[in-house]
Amino acid sequence: MQKSYETYVENMKKLADVEFSIAVLSWDKEVNMPPKGAAFRAQQVATLSGIAHDIFTDEKFGDLLKELSEKKDTLDKVAQNNIAQSLKRYNRVNSYSTEFVVRKSEVTSAAYHAWEKAREANDFKVYEDALGKMIDICKEESELLGYADHPYDALLEEYEPGCTSKELDVLFSDVKKQLVDFSKMLSQAPQVDNSFLLTHYDKDKQWNYGLHILKHMGYDFEAGRQDLSVHPFSTSFSPEDSRVTTRIDENNFGSMTWSCIHEGGHALYEQGLPATNYGLPSGKFISLGIHESQSRLWENNVGRGLAFWKNQYPNLQKTFPENLSDADLQTFYKAINKVVPSLIRTEADEITYHFHVLIRYEIEKLLLENKLAVKDIPEAWNSKYKAYLDIDVPDDKQGVLQDIHWALGSFGYFPTYSLGSFYAAQFYQQASKDIPNLEGQIEHGDCSELLKWLRENIHTHGQNFSAQQLCKKITGEPLNFKYFMDYAKAKYSGIYQLG
Amino acid sequence: MQKSYETYVENMKKLADVEFSIAVLSWDKEVNMPPKGAAFRAQQVATLSGIAHDIFTDEKFGDLLKELSEKKDTLDKVAQNNIAQSLKRYNRVNSYSTEFVVRKSEVTSAAYHAWEKAREANDFKVYEDALGKMIDICKEESELLGYADHPYDALLEEYEPGCTSKELDVLFSDVKKQLVDFSKMLSQAPQVDNSFLLTHYDKDKQWNYGLHILKHMGYDFEAGRQDLSVHPFSTSFSPEDSRVTTRIDENNFGSMTWSCIHEGGHALYEQGLPATNYGLPSGKFISLGIHESQSRLWENNVGRGLAFWKNQYPNLQKTFPENLSDADLQTFYKAINKVVPSLIRTEADEITYHFHVLIRYEIEKLLLENKLAVKDIPEAWNSKYKAYLDIDVPDDKQGVLQDIHWALGSFGYFPTYSLGSFYAAQFYQQASKDIPNLEGQIEHGDCSELLKWLRENIHTHGQNFSAQQLCKKITGEPLNFKYFMDYAKAKYSGIYQLG
Repeated sequence: MQKSYETYVENMKKLADVEFSIAVLSWDKEVNMPPKGAAFRAQQVATLSGIAHDIFTDEKFGDLLKELSEKKDTLDKVAQNNIAQSLKRYNRVNSYSTEFVVRKSEVTSAAYHAWEKAREANDFKVYEDALGKMIDICKEESELLGYADHPYDALLEEYEPGCTSKELDVLFSDVKKQLVDFSKMLSQAPQVDNSFLLTHYDKDKQWNYGLHILKHMGYDFEAGRQDLSVHPFSTSFSPEDSRVTTRIDENNFGSMTWSCIHEGGHALYEQGLPATNYGLPSGKFISLGIHESQSRLWENNVGRGLAFWKNQYPNLQKTFPENLSDADLQTFYKAINKVVPSLIRTEADEITYHFHVLIRYEIEKLLLENKLAVKDIPEAWNSKYKAYLDIDVPDDKQGVLQDIHWALGSFGYFPTYSLGSFYAAQFYQQASKDIPNLEGQIEHGDCSELLKWLRENIHTHGQNFSAQQLCKKITGEPLNFKYFMDYAKAKYSGIYQLG
Repeated sequence: MQKSYETYVENMKKLADVEFSIAVLSWDKEVNMPPKGAAFRAQQVATLSGIAHDIFTDEKFGDLLKELSEKKDTLDKVAQNNIAQSLKRYNRVNSYSTEFVVRKSEVTSAAYHAWEKAREANDFKVYEDALGKMIDICKEESELLGYADHPYDALLEEYEPGCTSKELDVLFSDVKKQLVDFSKMLSQAPQVDNSFLLTHYDKDKQWNYGLHILKHMGYDFEAGRQDLSVHPFSTSFSPEDSRVTTRIDENNFGSMTWSCIHEGGHALYEQGLPATNYGLPSGKFISLGIHESQSRLWENNVGRGLAFWKNQYPNLQKTFPENLSDADLQTFYKAINKVVPSLIRTEADEITYHFHVLIRYEIEKLLLENKLAVKDIPEAWNSKYKAYLDIDVPDDKQGVLQDIHWALGSFGYFPTYSLGSFYAAQFYQQASKDIPNLEGQIEHGDCSELLKWLRENIHTHGQNFSAQQLCKKITGEPLNFKYFMDYAKAKYSGIYQLG
């Protein structure tokens, strides 16, 4: 049995080698590749993806997984879970016929191009047919994969294993009940001024400040690097080489700063995964929601917190005296936490952000339940923006056409962004209990105890626990929106001087 | 038959996708990778190499090649040659048993580490045993691969297909007969002064000047890029993405400049290969010697030529006035062509360089003929340096331990460097005949006709012709040392004012 398990490990490592190679090619594409290289690079990535698929779906490998699963009692707990996770994945991947995979890839290609054209024309109608076909094939996919309660769950499983629409319904009904009213209170209070964040900040100085902040967080530059790209992202080729990218807007200090901290949070998770379990579930991140919890904890709970800037702000003022010498710490702290309803999800503050996700989640569910026609999506979108954000959507480009996700068939993806924030709040609250004087440490420029806590409680476990199990193990209860709400109330009541 | 040929093409493209992916990972390793990433990167490259090997050595693929080879009359000429080249390669690769491959990889690993240690200790004896084993296994390899005349030919075939030691013997006997005496004449003439090339040249200005020169040569930055690395190299991921690297020594203007032109020459060859034949022999470079002919033609025949600097020098003087305002064009031209016997091959001038290769070639042959014991290599090395270069080798590090090639088992590699220069001279001489007023064009800053000539006569043909065939096709005769000697005499008689 031990020998079979070793064969399994070898195969998973080989698969990881190919998948991480794809990640290198993709990183290079965004960071370095000269424009003419695109076509052959796409072909090279497609070939490696096909090879990875062949390695994982090999029938002999499936037989091995089944054999190991049947005799799992001879394996230790971590190995048992690895086999269980891999077999689950194997069965999922093998649910797809080649015919289906080819067809979905064609539908996706068509939808992506239609979405691009629709954005250019600023007209949803250009996209309508192709999106309709994409929704149809995603419905087909959910039937093919199977589900207990709701077709949404079959798709959600890809991004947030074990999570269900039932669980999301509870969370988002809390969002509606509590966050909508709270957000209205904020918008009725006197608004804070963040205009000095939108002045000219020197590019090179921003770049160096970003590197400084990553080091400050504990990001290991011996096992990673930062580069520039059009859209910031993090990627990993192993725990020993986990990279981040950022972008710099010379007229917006926040653009670089929080994307840098956000991607740094993702990368700290990857750098913290156990290298000895490379390629195995026990060496991989749990879910998109948990991954996002790591980026958002650093971005918002730490990086938009008062303690962090009590330490960092004097240095920042010295770096950008023209921009910041007139703004004291409190003014800066308020400015970086300005809450205001807006049209574009990726530019939203940490409060109204969740309405953007809520709207997408509600529309996705309605579509899968056949309760909303494709042609009616823009209307549904716009009326929900009015209802939840009290904002008029002027056109499709700033409305329903803003995200790429549906064009790629990624239904079920959006909720993981909110899950990230909610997990982050609950984890940070627990860290504050577990670590004596956490805020005091951060105020003194020491993030190491927090990183150690994240390493020990989250990173090091890989997929040994599901998101739900991990949350309970760490905080003693399942994911609860209460923690995010408590955090939001405490923070923003101060900033907006609510009664 | 057409369908079988298409299957062959698909398989070759798939193989190329994997091989070019390895090239991306290797480029990233030299240019970007953080230090801790090395171990997993090595594993990832090894896995992809294994996959590439499996694709190419698949028995079904071999059967397909044999089938296509037997019925080749139904294919066009290019396709026939593709099949012939691939089948030759298939048979060569399949000559190795897995046992042999594993054993050679172990011997190589041991030899490499022993070489590193020996360099550290500056003592050949530390390396002697491991090198002995490497020589033994290379002898075994040549028997396993088979040869008509000399075991050397079996190994040479890997780097310079179709070339034999008989051909090399003729060339190097010419080198000995003509170049040794000529070089002595140069060393007896009054020496030129190049001290102003070894003053401080600003790093950023050098970098920009390198980019300028690449553009001037016709290197397409839409299909490539330049980066820094410890050792300059060129690499290719497709004709649409062929990259170069350089290094900058702030106290040596030549280090960046000629490595930049040299690697640019390699990359121009890769950018000129026909993209439509991606992955096929008809889309690949012919041999290391022909590849090197492209780098050396640009580096020496163009980049160390008077015409090139007649055009470039005024601009260069303006860029580095502190270094160059006192040196006129003739002084600069002489300085960049200083000939002086030296210990280190990679730092040698274009004349004495070939003695370094000659010495290695003679020693390699003696070893394969069992006429030289491993323990006697340093003595043979040192006495040959005295004989050909009239120079005393002070220690092993500056002598027999300077190159990595033998530690990697690359016997037969060195001659391709000299072949490159000799082909370059013969090609350039022909180009000067074919292109009206070539030197005048270069003097006026126009390299485009030369590049066009190289594209049409060399690059575009891939492996449709062997090196020997191509040389005859272009110049009307086989490779002939005479052209290099004519070039050297004409150029250096002027520089050194020989009677």
